[in-house]
Amino acid sequence: MEKQKWGFKENHELHAAAALTVRNILQAIIGNIDETRTEKPMIHLGHGDPSVYPCFQTSSVVEDALVEAIRSAKYNCYAPGVGISPARRAVAEHLSKHLPYKLKTDDVFLTVGANHAIEVLIKVLARPGANILFPRPNYSLYEAQSRCNLLEVRHFDLLPEKGWEVDLDGVKALADDKTVAIVLINPGNPCGNVFTFNHMQKIAETARQLGILVIADEVYAYQVFGENPFIPMGVFGDIAPVVTLGTLSKRWIVPGWRFGWIAITDPTGILHKTGISGSIKSCLELTADPPTVIQAAVPHIMENTPDSFFLNINKLLKEAADMFYERIKEIPLVTCPHKPEGSMFAMVKINISAFDDVVDDTDFCMKLAREESMILFPGYAVGLKNWVRVSFAAEPEVLEDAIGRMKAFCLRHAKH
Amino acid sequence: MEKQKWGFKENHELHAAAALTVRNILQAIIGNIDETRTEKPMIHLGHGDPSVYPCFQTSSVVEDALVEAIRSAKYNCYAPGVGISPARRAVAEHLSKHLPYKLKTDDVFLTVGANHAIEVLIKVLARPGANILFPRPNYSLYEAQSRCNLLEVRHFDLLPEKGWEVDLDGVKALADDKTVAIVLINPGNPCGNVFTFNHMQKIAETARQLGILVIADEVYAYQVFGENPFIPMGVFGDIAPVVTLGTLSKRWIVPGWRFGWIAITDPTGILHKTGISGSIKSCLELTADPPTVIQAAVPHIMENTPDSFFLNINKLLKEAADMFYERIKEIPLVTCPHKPEGSMFAMVKINISAFDDVVDDTDFCMKLAREESMILFPGYAVGLKNWVRVSFAAEPEVLEDAIGRMKAFCLRHAKH
Repeated sequence: MEKQKWGFKENHELHAAAALTVRNILQAIIGNIDETRTEKPMIHLGHGDPSVYPCFQTSSVVEDALVEAIRSAKYNCYAPGVGISPARRAVAEHLSKHLPYKLKTDDVFLTVGANHAIEVLIKVLARPGANILFPRPNYSLYEAQSRCNLLEVRHFDLLPEKGWEVDLDGVKALADDKTVAIVLINPGNPCGNVFTFNHMQKIAETARQLGILVIADEVYAYQVFGENPFIPMGVFGDIAPVVTLGTLSKRWIVPGWRFGWIAITDPTGILHKTGISGSIKSCLELTADPPTVIQAAVPHIMENTPDSFFLNINKLLKEAADMFYERIKEIPLVTCPHKPEGSMFAMVKINISAFDDVVDDTDFCMKLAREESMILFPGYAVGLKNWVRVSFAAEPEVLEDAIGRMKAFCLRHAKH
Repeated sequence: MEKQKWGFKENHELHAAAALTVRNILQAIIGNIDETRTEKPMIHLGHGDPSVYPCFQTSSVVEDALVEAIRSAKYNCYAPGVGISPARRAVAEHLSKHLPYKLKTDDVFLTVGANHAIEVLIKVLARPGANILFPRPNYSLYEAQSRCNLLEVRHFDLLPEKGWEVDLDGVKALADDKTVAIVLINPGNPCGNVFTFNHMQKIAETARQLGILVIADEVYAYQVFGENPFIPMGVFGDIAPVVTLGTLSKRWIVPGWRFGWIAITDPTGILHKTGISGSIKSCLELTADPPTVIQAAVPHIMENTPDSFFLNINKLLKEAADMFYERIKEIPLVTCPHKPEGSMFAMVKINISAFDDVVDDTDFCMKLAREESMILFPGYAVGLKNWVRVSFAAEPEVLEDAIGRMKAFCLRHAKH
């Protein structure tokens, strides 16, 4: 056959954006693991998915609701792009319980997990010349989606010495008349912090002053176990317009079900008036939908999951966080500056200059995987070089084992 | 409160792209329906979703497989971006049955329905200056995604007088050195045609000559009931590289489950070598995933759905197509030039100049909805003005009723 010239080629832009995603980064680390060589079973503290541990199993109510939706044979059909009304209404009612106003069915848009919600919001806000304010450290998909959609990103600091509060002066210095929004993740991913009422009010006032939208990533809503209660950012929606992201994934421990939402928590109606709600709807017509059967299960899930389930999960998370925070102190060469109070994560700083042959956080994670069959998430990927993000949502024995492995690793590689 | 200036605004680009989607167009038509005023229950022949009719219910094997996946409690976790291996392998084996070579697990990528597969392929192929060849008429999401991703579209004709075959001279005249791919939908949406072996071979040879990728949209694979058997385009993958799109939606009648795939049906390995496979993988890291529980059900579904289920569905589709094609001849002012032999659709031409007060296909669909509570899809939206796309996949009594309503409508609006 003759030598053929083909008109299509590799898409390097997609590679560059995908390189920023949690799963791409984790794959590179997992590639170093060889359980038979280390004779240690893999411990994965690299992402927020404890569903593999028996103690973190979802509620039977959640499973039953989906089985019932399937058995009814009424939900094999297409759904509207924004989602089916009963599911939108159930999410609206769920969120309204802790807001000083009521959300309507039309304020809620259903998405294929929170990652899809992030994709939609970045697409909606992107336009030539616009910029968006992200925390440093951040959840890396925001960075990846902004890169894909040519939205300029600017980073303000979260301050470890202030319990990972937002550097509000930094926010004011970054913003200009092309800034469209500020993203806040509370409870914190990757920091495990929980914002106070007063701090959140100040953030909302800053957003109002700057004329920007607040994107409240509340993927870990109500998963708190320290002094600060969880307060939905929508409480401050009368100060600045707030869009809230949420999901079944973490609180109901079904991350693989890919069910999330975008809620317009904006009692003054600015986002309807300015066409942001309509733009979200248009974007949802163009992108993927959560399966209708899963949507159909949501009202039952939201109404009937017992409080005891959530209390137990938060108790397990608190015990894990307490144990992690105490035991990590035993490990030389790393420090956790702030005890986690929410979500499933803590940020741990690596004293890299005290290591003999570990050059940075990526090297730390790669070697830890190779030598100890253990996965952590490198800090560079969330914006903090020479830190690591640790998910402590594991069974106590596993977490204990993990800390032991980390300690052995650090001692083995410490400078003499 | 002071008058506030906000930095975010409506996204008109998303509105323009969403306006091209089937569901946006159907919503505008459905908005005209008032069942209580017409005293007629709505008949929806506007999209390919017969799951609402008892005779088109999915197999119990399909439902059982998903229930089993849920009850195992093993699939609440995150999946890789490309999908879980057992599901990818099951799709690879399913597709390999009718190919002259074997697909590997890695040749299959799982998507949130075929719409997501289209989104991914357009994103992968889009680059400044590139163009893509689409059939006219076409499935409108291709147009919407190309608009979003700034990929230039060029249209070749499907020829009604030749049973909706591709105008290959037209294809050759359109292509240039910036052309990346040609899209073919077989069995045909919206035309209900089925390509012959010889015609498909000529298409593949043309693609080779032009150095372009063939995107084979086989969403209606094996749903054929005329003289031509269904032949997967991958059969010609050694002539030009082929990427095949498929889904559970239509053949298993679960469109709301949102499970689809992209398969690299390219035995010469050009798409791996040129990095197209890798680019698809990167795109999947960035976009939504089908739920892990649904992925987990796929091996069981693919292995155990009885042939009798598919035979019965095709029998029902054939009876509906036969009845539709005969009865539509009774309606003055419209013609169906080609008897549907596959998929769930027929294209019907409206003799618009013979109408008194119907100005075009949109007007036809809007007035038909208002007066008869009946939904058809306007031809302009698939690229053929003054045609309509009809889904005949309905129960016989419903289809009978629908043709009666169409006839009454046409007689009422005909010029005297």
